[in-house]
Amino acid sequence: MPENSNTGIATDFFAADNFARENGIKLIEASPGHALVSMEISNRHKNSHGTVHGGALFTLADCAFGLASNLHGIPAAGINAHISYMTAAREGTLIAEAKEFTLNPKLASYTVTLTDENENKIAIFQGMAYRKTPGKDTTQ
Amino acid sequence: MPENSNTGIATDFFAADNFARENGIKLIEASPGHALVSMEISNRHKNSHGTVHGGALFTLADCAFGLASNLHGIPAAGINAHISYMTAAREGTLIAEAKEFTLNPKLASYTVTLTDENENKIAIFQGMAYRKTPGKDTTQ
Amino acid sequence: MPENSNTGIATDFFAADNFARENGIKLIEASPGHALVSMEISNRHKNSHGTVHGGALFTLADCAFGLASNLHGIPAAGINAHISYMTAAREGTLIAEAKEFTLNPKLASYTVTLTDENENKIAIFQGMAYRKTPGKDTTQ
Amino acid sequence: MPENSNTGIATDFFAADNFARENGIKLIEASPGHALVSMEISNRHKNSHGTVHGGALFTLADCAFGLASNLHGIPAAGINAHISYMTAAREGTLIAEAKEFTLNPKLASYTVTLTDENENKIAIFQGMAYRKTPGKDTTQ
Repeated sequence: MPENSNTGIATDFFAADNFARENGIKLIEASPGHALVSMEISNRHKNSHGTVHGGALFTLADCAFGLASNLHGIPAAGINAHISYMTAAREGTLIAEAKEFTLNPKLASYTVTLTDENENKIAIFQGMAYRKTPGKDTTQ
Repeated sequence: MPENSNTGIATDFFAADNFARENGIKLIEASPGHALVSMEISNRHKNSHGTVHGGALFTLADCAFGLASNLHGIPAAGINAHISYMTAAREGTLIAEAKEFTLNPKLASYTVTLTDENENKIAIFQGMAYRKTPGKDTTQ
Repeated sequence: MPENSNTGIATDFFAADNFARENGIKLIEASPGHALVSMEISNRHKNSHGTVHGGALFTLADCAFGLASNLHGIPAAGINAHISYMTAAREGTLIAEAKEFTLNPKLASYTVTLTDENENKIAIFQGMAYRKTPGKDTTQ
Repeated sequence: MPENSNTGIATDFFAADNFARENGIKLIEASPGHALVSMEISNRHKNSHGTVHGGALFTLADCAFGLASNLHGIPAAGINAHISYMTAAREGTLIAEAKEFTLNPKLASYTVTLTDENENKIAIFQGMAYRKTPGKDTTQ
């Protein structure tokens, strides 16, 4: 039952993500190289302009990136990320979807798109992960 | 009293930043083109690996960027940002310092460095802001 | 004949791109929001490691980005770009394909993928353009 | 004579960079973690708008990044880079200066600033390099 197995691993991995939970992010589904997460916008996510904070948008994307990159079974640490914001978000539920672009033995890259519930494009995120060699690799 | 005046404006601007407050970020000082903010690491900031979440590091940097870019008196919306993570953070207090690289009529750019209390370099962030023309500009 | 018309405009726009021509980049096809360009690798494109220079890969992606963003008929200036390199390239022909992610009145964003002739993924590029208001806008 | 020695190694490393030479880039000075390179603007560097091509600006910055990251004696491959363009360049000589932000066993990061001869800020570049383990590491 590989799908159920993935779901279980994803659920466990995500349950350990305190910052995601504290900020109201929810796992929809995830498997190696792919992830979908959501965040229902509330006042706590807003910045001084009354729109969703760049940090909240980034965090949502980063959670999808973290799931997609870690579910291969090798710990993957984000080493850099780029986000472009296209439309300010104010209400409703945001969705982030991560897709794997490439997977090498040490490095992997992901594109994450953020949309609102009307499929408006809110932001696009590009992240790179460094895949650790268990028991040997001490980078980060 | 320009410095006090800046401090007041910065304090008011930052007080309206819900996401920063919810995540335990504190204003140290800020003026047009420059900002210092801090975050005392607690369990709520951790990811599934037990280190500070990329979203928390980004949010800290983004708050410094938002202050530095908005205190010129013209609303500035972040349009993109890049972050490179160098060292995982686990405890203590993190500091983000934003410095203005360039300021044009419509665009401005900032470099933010994140360090821990032992001056270890944790991350570096580059952000660009779009400066709105009040009353006219509806982008974002 | 809008397609032919696009081709003519793209050809003219690209013909004026000295840096692309000097570096052996060729236009395959382009229309508003989309572009395909190619570069046959030769020794002139190599870096000190004997692989294709990051600057050459970036330039190829940037040409696709420039075409896709400028063919809407409004001058568009690149304001930032991010590139992730996944595999070193050594020989053959590289292809860059730009796709529009979002188009706002002032800002637009594009994703460009670089592949070799065996469809290996070489790099991914994310670029943002500032769209000028003809006769008014002096930014950049 | 460590400085002379660095200069010799830098000169040899740079002499092997075909793409830099073909595009008129010159080495000013370089040592482990630091580099200065220049490019005298000519028509060959221009884009379709008549300003210096984003690819030429990026290439100049990338050469400084490549020198600074490789002169530690361990081959370093660029894995990603971000550039923000602030002012269009049209004539004169551009200078790129790379400074090391952090150096870990496997990863290192650099900030490169591009200025013209009047010290106008043209662009800022952030690059990350993966440092290979000679004889073992086959990534890229």
